[in-house]
Amino acid sequence: MYINQDKIRKFSNQCFTELGMPEEEARVITEVLLEADLREIHSHGFLRLPIYVERIKKELTKTKAEISYEKDTDTMTLIDGNNSAGQVVAYQAMEASIKKAEHFGIGLAAVRNSNHFGISAYYSLMAAKKNMIGIVISNTAPLMPAIGGAEKVIGNNPISIAAPLKNYEPLVLDMAMSNTAFGKILYAKEKNQEIPEGWGVDAKGAPTTDPNKVVNGGFLAPVGGPKGFGLALMAEVLTGVLSGGDFSKMIPSMYDVNKKQSISHFMLSIDINQLIPLETYYNNVEQLISYVKDSKKATGASETYLPGEIEFLKEKKNKTQGVPMQEQTFDKLNELSKELKIDSLTE
Amino acid sequence: MYINQDKIRKFSNQCFTELGMPEEEARVITEVLLEADLREIHSHGFLRLPIYVERIKKELTKTKAEISYEKDTDTMTLIDGNNSAGQVVAYQAMEASIKKAEHFGIGLAAVRNSNHFGISAYYSLMAAKKNMIGIVISNTAPLMPAIGGAEKVIGNNPISIAAPLKNYEPLVLDMAMSNTAFGKILYAKEKNQEIPEGWGVDAKGAPTTDPNKVVNGGFLAPVGGPKGFGLALMAEVLTGVLSGGDFSKMIPSMYDVNKKQSISHFMLSIDINQLIPLETYYNNVEQLISYVKDSKKATGASETYLPGEIEFLKEKKNKTQGVPMQEQTFDKLNELSKELKIDSLTE
Repeated sequence: MYINQDKIRKFSNQCFTELGMPEEEARVITEVLLEADLREIHSHGFLRLPIYVERIKKELTKTKAEISYEKDTDTMTLIDGNNSAGQVVAYQAMEASIKKAEHFGIGLAAVRNSNHFGISAYYSLMAAKKNMIGIVISNTAPLMPAIGGAEKVIGNNPISIAAPLKNYEPLVLDMAMSNTAFGKILYAKEKNQEIPEGWGVDAKGAPTTDPNKVVNGGFLAPVGGPKGFGLALMAEVLTGVLSGGDFSKMIPSMYDVNKKQSISHFMLSIDINQLIPLETYYNNVEQLISYVKDSKKATGASETYLPGEIEFLKEKKNKTQGVPMQEQTFDKLNELSKELKIDSLTE
Repeated sequence: MYINQDKIRKFSNQCFTELGMPEEEARVITEVLLEADLREIHSHGFLRLPIYVERIKKELTKTKAEISYEKDTDTMTLIDGNNSAGQVVAYQAMEASIKKAEHFGIGLAAVRNSNHFGISAYYSLMAAKKNMIGIVISNTAPLMPAIGGAEKVIGNNPISIAAPLKNYEPLVLDMAMSNTAFGKILYAKEKNQEIPEGWGVDAKGAPTTDPNKVVNGGFLAPVGGPKGFGLALMAEVLTGVLSGGDFSKMIPSMYDVNKKQSISHFMLSIDINQLIPLETYYNNVEQLISYVKDSKKATGASETYLPGEIEFLKEKKNKTQGVPMQEQTFDKLNELSKELKIDSLTE
């Protein structure tokens, strides 16, 4: 089903303002959630609205942001989100990183005590819109074991890198560190299909192709084994460790509504023009993408896509036809409207 | 077989000085090659010495480095290697990046017209030794197709991230973007074994589990499909594009001894102490590694290793027992000694 953009926007804003959140903060969260659903990254869209609301009601996330700057140099800032909403903290942190890059070429915001911030690409794209390279990393609650381990120690940490193009939407990579999404393993389980090697391990940490063994006490596996594990671990260093915040087993699940989550982010901006002329950059990057787009196609393939390209195509389509939403999410949002005593999406 | 460290050091230095290279430059190349073999990354060790020598003799690599600083701001430097030896350029660039980070918290060296620089970890570790985080990326000649492509457009670009520890060797990730090494596919071919899905594609870009089809005109596949492809493409942006240098199909193979190679690097240093107190950092990072090292072990596993840990263990062992070397490499080096009229490794 498809929801009118303005309707879901108004609905989401109202959910947060009803709880006492300032309008401009509500708007930031809404826009990040909306962008996710428009890009069809539904796992990070309005599906998360009910848990965000619950965490605010339980005072695990602050209703009104209290963000403090613990350190501020020419190029770096250390931000304490004090458990304010992740999107609000991350938006402000990325703005700080961009501002520093405007003045000194590079800007880094190290963020601690934030919360789930939605899609990483939202923030890296903020840099790309300013003719900068944006690199955004976050940690999460631990989800995967070490190589040879049988206990969750590293998050499915996302990394996003965005780079502007002149005549097209930016290049934007936005990936997490597991080999595959948990949903794909659930799907194979329902269909009684084997999963490929490398997708998951069983409860004892042994590789398995049986989806049941992953779902029942097993774990997702990092992409490329030691490569994904290594990237995810270094992501913990760049986020939680470097900000003096929480990491790994310190972080409870966002669905544990008795505990604060304290997520950390790493947000880097590089101002291209302070290194090489923008024209040179744009000519070069478009040469690079033409190598990809014009490359010989594999049998059965009609297109070679750039990082983020498919999501931009979806976004464009959905901006016209409405925000795609699963019925289950729609129903949950309508339940939420009763709880908060605001207009439902059907009204 | 094992070669005495001092012997191979002297031999390698002599190869380069015999060609007219200044001693201090020869020494830098030798140390990077030695480190690779000590860490048993033999693909990047003295195995490469003959091709380095050949490229210098053919004047594709400069005998004496001519490195120019095209741009130099407080935080960023744009370096043109003018086709000097990759190790010499990269070493100088990483030093520049570290120096900037000492003064301004972060330092970036964007490098163009360099050459193959050996193992990336060598340079990221230079930052770690100064209590900094080091991030090093390089491009290479294209080796893999796009997703849905059947033509080489992205390199097997390495990325290395190093972070210092107080009581142990640094954490150091050093990975390239292919799912597996080509050598493993050759091995499966020899043994008449199938390869797992995702390791490679055939000449038409179709996924295959037949190693023969990868070896005969096919391609290595990026780790995790679109994830590895996306990372490798963003690596091209951060290196070749951002430095105004070469990238993708512009770069010939280093074994094509009729063409200059012009490789680009991205070298970032972050001075931890300018963000959080070093003591806090060290306590936190050691807490993180204890989560990994003390985690419950998978059936059959006795240890959970950190990024770079296995290589440090090998290095320690090999520093005592000598530099491990394949007979084939040993023979090639002795041939080289005749060609250059220097003492062979057997003398």
